Amino acid sequence: MFIAGKSVVGDGPEIRAFDPVEGAELEPGYRYGDASHVEAACAAAAAAFGEYRATSSERRARFLEVIADNIEALREALVARASAETGLPQPRIEGEVGRTTGQLRLFAEVLREGSWNGARIDPAQPDRVPVPRPDIRQRAVPLGPVAVFGASNFPLAFSVAGGDTASALAAGCPVVVKAHDAHPGTSELVGRAVTAAVAAVGLPAGTFSMLFIPGVGLGTTLVTDPRIKAVGFTGSRSGGMAVVAAAAARPEPIPVYAEMSAINPVFLLDGALATRGADLGRAFAASLTMGSGQFCTNPGLVIAVEGPGLDAFLAAAEDALEHAEATPMLTPNIAASYAKGVDSFDSAADLVVRGAPGDDRTTCRAALFSTDATTFRDSEALQAEVFGASSLVVRCVDEAEMISVAADLEGQLTATLHADESDHAQAAGLLPLLELKVGRILFNGWPTGVEVGYAMVHGGPSPATSDSRTTSVGACAIERFLRPVCYQNVPKSLLPNAIADGNPDALWRRIDGKLSQD
Amino acid sequence: MFIAGKSVVGDGPEIRAFDPVEGAELEPGYRYGDASHVEAACAAAAAAFGEYRATSSERRARFLEVIADNIEALREALVARASAETGLPQPRIEGEVGRTTGQLRLFAEVLREGSWNGARIDPAQPDRVPVPRPDIRQRAVPLGPVAVFGASNFPLAFSVAGGDTASALAAGCPVVVKAHDAHPGTSELVGRAVTAAVAAVGLPAGTFSMLFIPGVGLGTTLVTDPRIKAVGFTGSRSGGMAVVAAAAARPEPIPVYAEMSAINPVFLLDGALATRGADLGRAFAASLTMGSGQFCTNPGLVIAVEGPGLDAFLAAAEDALEHAEATPMLTPNIAASYAKGVDSFDSAADLVVRGAPGDDRTTCRAALFSTDATTFRDSEALQAEVFGASSLVVRCVDEAEMISVAADLEGQLTATLHADESDHAQAAGLLPLLELKVGRILFNGWPTGVEVGYAMVHGGPSPATSDSRTTSVGACAIERFLRPVCYQNVPKSLLPNAIADGNPDALWRRIDGKLSQD
Repeated sequence: MFIAGKSVVGDGPEIRAFDPVEGAELEPGYRYGDASHVEAACAAAAAAFGEYRATSSERRARFLEVIADNIEALREALVARASAETGLPQPRIEGEVGRTTGQLRLFAEVLREGSWNGARIDPAQPDRVPVPRPDIRQRAVPLGPVAVFGASNFPLAFSVAGGDTASALAAGCPVVVKAHDAHPGTSELVGRAVTAAVAAVGLPAGTFSMLFIPGVGLGTTLVTDPRIKAVGFTGSRSGGMAVVAAAAARPEPIPVYAEMSAINPVFLLDGALATRGADLGRAFAASLTMGSGQFCTNPGLVIAVEGPGLDAFLAAAEDALEHAEATPMLTPNIAASYAKGVDSFDSAADLVVRGAPGDDRTTCRAALFSTDATTFRDSEALQAEVFGASSLVVRCVDEAEMISVAADLEGQLTATLHADESDHAQAAGLLPLLELKVGRILFNGWPTGVEVGYAMVHGGPSPATSDSRTTSVGACAIERFLRPVCYQNVPKSLLPNAIADGNPDALWRRIDGKLSQD
Repeated sequence: MFIAGKSVVGDGPEIRAFDPVEGAELEPGYRYGDASHVEAACAAAAAAFGEYRATSSERRARFLEVIADNIEALREALVARASAETGLPQPRIEGEVGRTTGQLRLFAEVLREGSWNGARIDPAQPDRVPVPRPDIRQRAVPLGPVAVFGASNFPLAFSVAGGDTASALAAGCPVVVKAHDAHPGTSELVGRAVTAAVAAVGLPAGTFSMLFIPGVGLGTTLVTDPRIKAVGFTGSRSGGMAVVAAAAARPEPIPVYAEMSAINPVFLLDGALATRGADLGRAFAASLTMGSGQFCTNPGLVIAVEGPGLDAFLAAAEDALEHAEATPMLTPNIAASYAKGVDSFDSAADLVVRGAPGDDRTTCRAALFSTDATTFRDSEALQAEVFGASSLVVRCVDEAEMISVAADLEGQLTATLHADESDHAQAAGLLPLLELKVGRILFNGWPTGVEVGYAMVHGGPSPATSDSRTTSVGACAIERFLRPVCYQNVPKSLLPNAIADGNPDALWRRIDGKLSQD
């Protein structure tokens, strides 16, 4: 563990990563910390907060860049270790290194651009009648220390220095990470890289800590610590809802940003199916099985109207999946849950195809099911997420039925439409419905692969996330850790730079509601 | 009641407004509705949502202006009725009419300016390696039908067509108002004005409904109706926390914006006390007793270092308050709570002065107490809000003690500093502490009187509100009812105007993160 710049070894139970490819535990063992470590990390974060939040945007941008540099310097070791700990192929981890450093550098850009300050000035109107208007200004301040729960499925991009950590640090919040048990070695490497960056940039040591603690029990201790002011979480629905409940039960409730579950419906419209049903089937199989299907945005549901196009789609998908090798899953627990989920689908829907068999204790054997719309709507089991390369095709009798299936869906991270020009009228009918159900709508692609940029939304209505007003990927993620403060008639010499006269930081600000860089 | 354009009379128990000045109930009686009315209003709101949210910014701006016009046309009737129902003096209600119409017109401006769309475009990069970047765009969509709980203390500005309703309607959300029992006649007048505006602008009838329902029971029915997607509430801490709990326990939890309680600390720094202690005492007494102290931002706590300046402050405040007449409170319940709250202070702190006596069943007799810092910190009772013209002066032995009292405070709507030039160093030490505790910091003024503008924050950390990331007053209030949606590779012809090529609505948008009106 790393607590406020110091490397600390707990004396709790040992945890070990498991290499699902080799089917063996990995050295070394790591030990859980206890409540005293949670206490120490929270105390250090609270102590660091005042100094850390007062740092300039430039200094925090530099900090994030040094973290990115440090991670890049570890690339080879990280790729080897993360790949061993997760069973994910090395090229995928290579990509994830780039994604992680890219996220850190994106937030450095966001900091330098400066709009994150939310600066607004309503100048005084001393001559207004019947009463003069005071000088009123607004800027954003960070919430305070943030607890981040690392995800199992992105050992880098949603883990120790992943999107939640990067956006919280950018906002000026110290971070206490609960590292995921499944990749302690990767976590150690990254935790060391962040700790070194804190020291290199001369920030207060408590700006960052990383703990190995059991999620049940001490995870709640972390969330309910009064010094923690927000939580970022990526994981299961049950885990996320437990964190939400713990945070809501605090004397001072705090925001929780839990990205939990989704089945990411894919709508295949008639024109697209008619012209390229088989191509879509093959591309779908590739998206479904990538990374053993262990993505929040995995296409777990396909909705289409019956006909020759859908038949061609199913035949091509069947053909591709039949030969798909069983691939390693992140952990034996996840493999067991997957097998159980597929079993429950097997008893509720028609099996289209299973992939090539493998060791069910460690690998994912792809699965595709189909059913009719009525069966789907009546079955809670078929609407649940199976984390892994399992998907369900819902065969609708007509467009109206497809729309009514869409209308009944729970909140989702994404919805995908495959649509040709001839489908645009139908797509236009679906769009207003989907806008209220999902965080991202995409056409003629696959939901896996979440671009990190300024406009991305990786979020969506409950139960996809616990707060639909936000995103956990992309530039807007920083807003999760900020809140506005208003300054009325504050003496000029005491105003923060962001809302000072003369605009010393050259920010875009709203003056009487109008954007200006003056 | 008004349900989707129709005037509806319930057949539940009768409610009647009470004129605290005359000490008599007012005609006519109004009747509570039942669960069928909640159902009808929610169903109509859900049915209206699709069409209402698709209206242009210009059309919604026009709608808000017509509401404002209709309210202005009722000015005389409103002032007479609201004054009778609340006991608030007519000039105060006159001001509140202007404030209410000003809020509606502010949101019309916000709509026309257009930044509420949160438009972002990350253009495609087809040649990017290793993988092309898709076209990614983002805009905000409204959450859905919103339930608004009218406040007792602002029969217009935080009631049927108050800030919550105006900002929700601006965002594109239909509104179901639970009118406050204490001013049913005022609510009827305003509800009729809004209903007429819906019809005049040709909006779907379900865009607005207003119910008379008991808060306990049917209030929860409203909050837990699955078609309601957010709640605006202004009222007591217990009432607000009940709404928060009900919303959190829904299968699909929803955001609640509850503005609850605050004691709004006022710091009197040494220089200011030395040069104008007596003036401050008189001004404080005026702020405290205005509107019988029935403001969320009433100065319920004064913190200062002992000395001749504080003595002068206390003497002047005592002198002013001693002669302050007992003034009517909004309802007999509120008067009873006030009397009880003052009693509890009486047994825990030193009485400085009471105002002139009146009828304790209907009026507010001002009260000022004082105590030392240790007693204050050890007493939960002395840190609670007494709604009305009661305040407590905490006498500190030195600056360090004042800072430690500040550090222990709960979340607040406001903090006020009275500071001369010579106090700026001390103020600079307090500011970072207060930024984390409150929504608004003001100098050399009084927290009562919340300016409605672009930069205002009327909010603050728990327990002042249930969501510190927002404000219930001012332009930013619209953000409470919006969430971002991302559009990836969506065909140009299907993109909403806000993020269409060529910027047809001439909005400020972020293109690759950079603000632009192109």
